[in-house]
Amino acid sequence: MKKAIVLFSGGLDSTTVIAIAREQQFQLYALSFSYGQRHSVELDAAKRIAADMAVSQHVIADIDLTTFGGSALTADIDVPKHQIATDMTDGIPITYVPARNTIFLSFALAWAEVLGAQDIFIGVSSVDYSGYPDCRPEFISAFQQMANLATAAGVEGSQQITIHAPLSELSKAQTIALGTKLGVDYGQTLSCYDPEANGAACGYCDSCQLRKKGFNEAGIADPTIYRS
Amino acid sequence: MKKAIVLFSGGLDSTTVIAIAREQQFQLYALSFSYGQRHSVELDAAKRIAADMAVSQHVIADIDLTTFGGSALTADIDVPKHQIATDMTDGIPITYVPARNTIFLSFALAWAEVLGAQDIFIGVSSVDYSGYPDCRPEFISAFQQMANLATAAGVEGSQQITIHAPLSELSKAQTIALGTKLGVDYGQTLSCYDPEANGAACGYCDSCQLRKKGFNEAGIADPTIYRS
Repeated sequence: MKKAIVLFSGGLDSTTVIAIAREQQFQLYALSFSYGQRHSVELDAAKRIAADMAVSQHVIADIDLTTFGGSALTADIDVPKHQIATDMTDGIPITYVPARNTIFLSFALAWAEVLGAQDIFIGVSSVDYSGYPDCRPEFISAFQQMANLATAAGVEGSQQITIHAPLSELSKAQTIALGTKLGVDYGQTLSCYDPEANGAACGYCDSCQLRKKGFNEAGIADPTIYRS
Repeated sequence: MKKAIVLFSGGLDSTTVIAIAREQQFQLYALSFSYGQRHSVELDAAKRIAADMAVSQHVIADIDLTTFGGSALTADIDVPKHQIATDMTDGIPITYVPARNTIFLSFALAWAEVLGAQDIFIGVSSVDYSGYPDCRPEFISAFQQMANLATAAGVEGSQQITIHAPLSELSKAQTIALGTKLGVDYGQTLSCYDPEANGAACGYCDSCQLRKKGFNEAGIADPTIYRS
């Protein structure tokens, strides 16, 4: 079996990506980050899901993005409620974490090189990407090109790194429909930017609203527990 | 003054780069990493030099590259002595840290985005690069292209990120000659992969040998304190 690194937050998208990579017969290496996000509830969800989905190894890398600040998710800024920014004309949302996917993919690349893996999966979508520049297909493609120049494997020509973004062209509803078909238990996944300690979602942040809308459009019952 | 991030290890090359960026009138933001390298002597040297060279801010970001292993500099492998690998035909040296420059530049990109800086300096050389794939000009150029797609600034078109690699075409001797002209005190810099706790260099590792050869070829007295 070929090995694949999957960037994995424990959220709806990256859990679907694990199911997709598993369906494609990859041996799974899930990579999560502890990066000064406000809630470790997210990492607890990731650990449970990784165990349930039988990944070969789940690594949680500690990185300190609070050093630089600059985002509602890492600095002391309130997470905005009742606001969805779905396209670039609204500018970059305050929940954007500077260069986050670049950093995450760089760590995935390091692990891929150590494991001798050629495949990295990331759950970005260019449909529901809320204005994050590092979710666009042109970014993923540029990262792949850079990765093949960055690594020993690229130099030796023995293998090429592929960055897979299987949700890139899917709406949230399409992602949910696909994951449901692949057996994903979305009740375990956590999307909320501001969850309760017990894992209940706020229901109002960008991420909760996209998730609700997705289940609604897919015509699938939303198993999420929202704060009452 | 324009702000620049300088990737800064406290070694000979990155200290020269600080002097170059200072000469070009940039306001300096130095970024070092604590990444499970064997010696914190290196970071102590970096702190002293950053203070001496009047950088505006010096951040040491904690990242855990030992999670993945795979290099003599982060894993429990002996640093090789009496061996210099100066070209690719010898393969990748054991001291290569997988995807290290990709990770370092990604963090620099995050900080640049927070500061609104457009310029990132890195002290790689394609002349004395010891077979590291992520020191080649084509890697630097691919990273820059990716960076401009990764960031909010790139999307808004308000600014472009430039990755400066001013030592790229310089031999170690040329770097030392340039730095000496710019007033660098090389006695403070540390290049050794395996220094004593007091900062004395081993004199035998790849990095020590390249450094000795550089001073010798430049005809400049080597101020390094070597282990007796």
